[in-house]
Amino acid sequence: MPAAEDDLKTEKAIAGESLTPFGSCPIPIFDHKRIVLGHGSGGKLTADLIDKIFLPAFRNPTLDKLDDQAVLTIGGARLAFSTDSFVVTPIFFPGGDIGRLAIHGTVNDLAMSGARPLYLSVAFILEEGLAVDDLRRVVESMRAAAAEAGVKLVTGDTKVVNRGKGDQIFITTTGIGVIEHDISISADRARAGDKIILSGYIGDHGMTIMSQREGLEFEGAIESDCAPLNGLVSAMLATASPANDFIHTLRDPTRGGVATTLNEIAKHANVGMVLDERTIPVRESVKGACEVLGLDPLYVANEGKLLALVVPEMAGAVLEQMRQHPFGQDAVIIGEVVENHPGMVLMKTEIGGTRVLDVMFGEQLPRIC
Amino acid sequence: MPAAEDDLKTEKAIAGESLTPFGSCPIPIFDHKRIVLGHGSGGKLTADLIDKIFLPAFRNPTLDKLDDQAVLTIGGARLAFSTDSFVVTPIFFPGGDIGRLAIHGTVNDLAMSGARPLYLSVAFILEEGLAVDDLRRVVESMRAAAAEAGVKLVTGDTKVVNRGKGDQIFITTTGIGVIEHDISISADRARAGDKIILSGYIGDHGMTIMSQREGLEFEGAIESDCAPLNGLVSAMLATASPANDFIHTLRDPTRGGVATTLNEIAKHANVGMVLDERTIPVRESVKGACEVLGLDPLYVANEGKLLALVVPEMAGAVLEQMRQHPFGQDAVIIGEVVENHPGMVLMKTEIGGTRVLDVMFGEQLPRIC
Repeated sequence: MPAAEDDLKTEKAIAGESLTPFGSCPIPIFDHKRIVLGHGSGGKLTADLIDKIFLPAFRNPTLDKLDDQAVLTIGGARLAFSTDSFVVTPIFFPGGDIGRLAIHGTVNDLAMSGARPLYLSVAFILEEGLAVDDLRRVVESMRAAAAEAGVKLVTGDTKVVNRGKGDQIFITTTGIGVIEHDISISADRARAGDKIILSGYIGDHGMTIMSQREGLEFEGAIESDCAPLNGLVSAMLATASPANDFIHTLRDPTRGGVATTLNEIAKHANVGMVLDERTIPVRESVKGACEVLGLDPLYVANEGKLLALVVPEMAGAVLEQMRQHPFGQDAVIIGEVVENHPGMVLMKTEIGGTRVLDVMFGEQLPRIC
Repeated sequence: MPAAEDDLKTEKAIAGESLTPFGSCPIPIFDHKRIVLGHGSGGKLTADLIDKIFLPAFRNPTLDKLDDQAVLTIGGARLAFSTDSFVVTPIFFPGGDIGRLAIHGTVNDLAMSGARPLYLSVAFILEEGLAVDDLRRVVESMRAAAAEAGVKLVTGDTKVVNRGKGDQIFITTTGIGVIEHDISISADRARAGDKIILSGYIGDHGMTIMSQREGLEFEGAIESDCAPLNGLVSAMLATASPANDFIHTLRDPTRGGVATTLNEIAKHANVGMVLDERTIPVRESVKGACEVLGLDPLYVANEGKLLALVVPEMAGAVLEQMRQHPFGQDAVIIGEVVENHPGMVLMKTEIGGTRVLDVMFGEQLPRIC
């Protein structure tokens, strides 16, 4: 896709216009001189920032894979290494808080390489004036979340910024996990034929945050799905299989949702995907909230769900394993990887049509995690 | 020291009063309900936050050591793991910028365990409106700093917060290093008899930031000493020695300066220290700036200096090794560890008296790193 088209899209996305992926403009009429909220969305603008600023400077084979974690070999041990900053607002919400999110977010990024998460570091940036009781509550939640995930917090840092130069509390967690099997799980390993498994209902986390922020009340309470997925992944990897290499890719669809995550995989692996809309589980309450706010649940963040690309002959067995785990009981096959239209995700809609699911362009839901 | 006395001191420190460590008040008349800037100072209030909020929740043997890095054993490899957030303002300053600081800060924390730093993660929290050119300049500086230190940036994250909810750019770096020798280097290993070596001039970084912030000009420009210390540490560890275990403790005196760092070591190891003021190298320009601003260089942050506690029979040889390294050419012995007055650092002053060097109480220099 030429740069000019990218720029047009970016501008349109910022203006809130709906876009088809086939729009085109020969002249670059828009260029970012300033960071906008969309640069943190996990969508197209974030990818731009990575492609144009970070990768050219930091380029190396590990980083170039653009997985959510680096896989390193040190002294014979295969390790996963991952970092995330959390800036969610509000800091407390139904189903979780910024502390729980910060622990499980990094635990999940490690788990998506098939690693067993072991150790976390925690760095706090506190705003002057933060209630110490709120900090205590966040820290207690982190303790409980770490215990639930079976990880240890072993080192940390605290900085304080002046009032009005932060927003209560930002948390950066970084984790180390150990990879104890020979399977190489990575976005670029997706292959035509793979079944796409989704571990459960989508959109819960994002719509919980949006509802809280907008002060909306919906029939049927919505709660964040924030949860540690390392146990589920470990159960999946334990599926009895004749061949070792049955899970090609694992990803947790956080910022940008299922649609953006699948697009990233399709582009990295240069494969197409076809989804069946009817199979994708969305709660009525989340559907309702999305309709009110004009959002598509496929682009809404999840914090306790995963997508797995599994060789077709093992998909049924992996699904069975998942359904026996509390965080996978609603797991379903939502589509498959195909050779056609590489880099593109198509969806068969409920009414029998086909639409292109593109990556999210701008900032649908700022500061969702 | 009873809690009541702590609270009085804290209050006095916030009010800017000078304190002797022997003041006392039987009633707790002050209690923090809100985070203040001093909680990020690296001094007494930071220690309070760690003791009262973080340690009770996260307690484990690795964290309890309270070194600037965790030492972990995974799959037979001994690893160092360390994290720091950087919130310095201004983000560009003579001798460096927030990017260089973020790389070398974490490289140095790893090196202080005697580890060889290998991999870094980088998490950005950007404020909406940040000039993309400023981001590019910071990223380029990080690239150069990583190359200088010989480390690779292998994974990262970017979040964007609304204008007025951040301050241009915050960076959290987390590093992994490998420990390739048998020496156990830790704050709690300081022993009576150890010589205290300081690697060069103190106060350069802190006074550079303060001068920039206050718009002060001094005779003789001051530049931040921001530098990677892993090469210097590696040279020190290579000193020919009959016994393996000749360096007990390494620390870089950042927030809180030399005085706070030595106090922390004295308390952890339950030893006393005696310094000789005449030996401590301070540039005239830094001395002058400190006088104007009413600061003591012993409490001012450094970003390219280290303190080493070395067994007496090896101190001379280690010092020689250091002086042959560009970042150690002004290294000197500034004092020694003693059995008397455990937990306390005393300094023989230039005019022949003795003063107690206590930890920094409040916030002498907010957002210095």
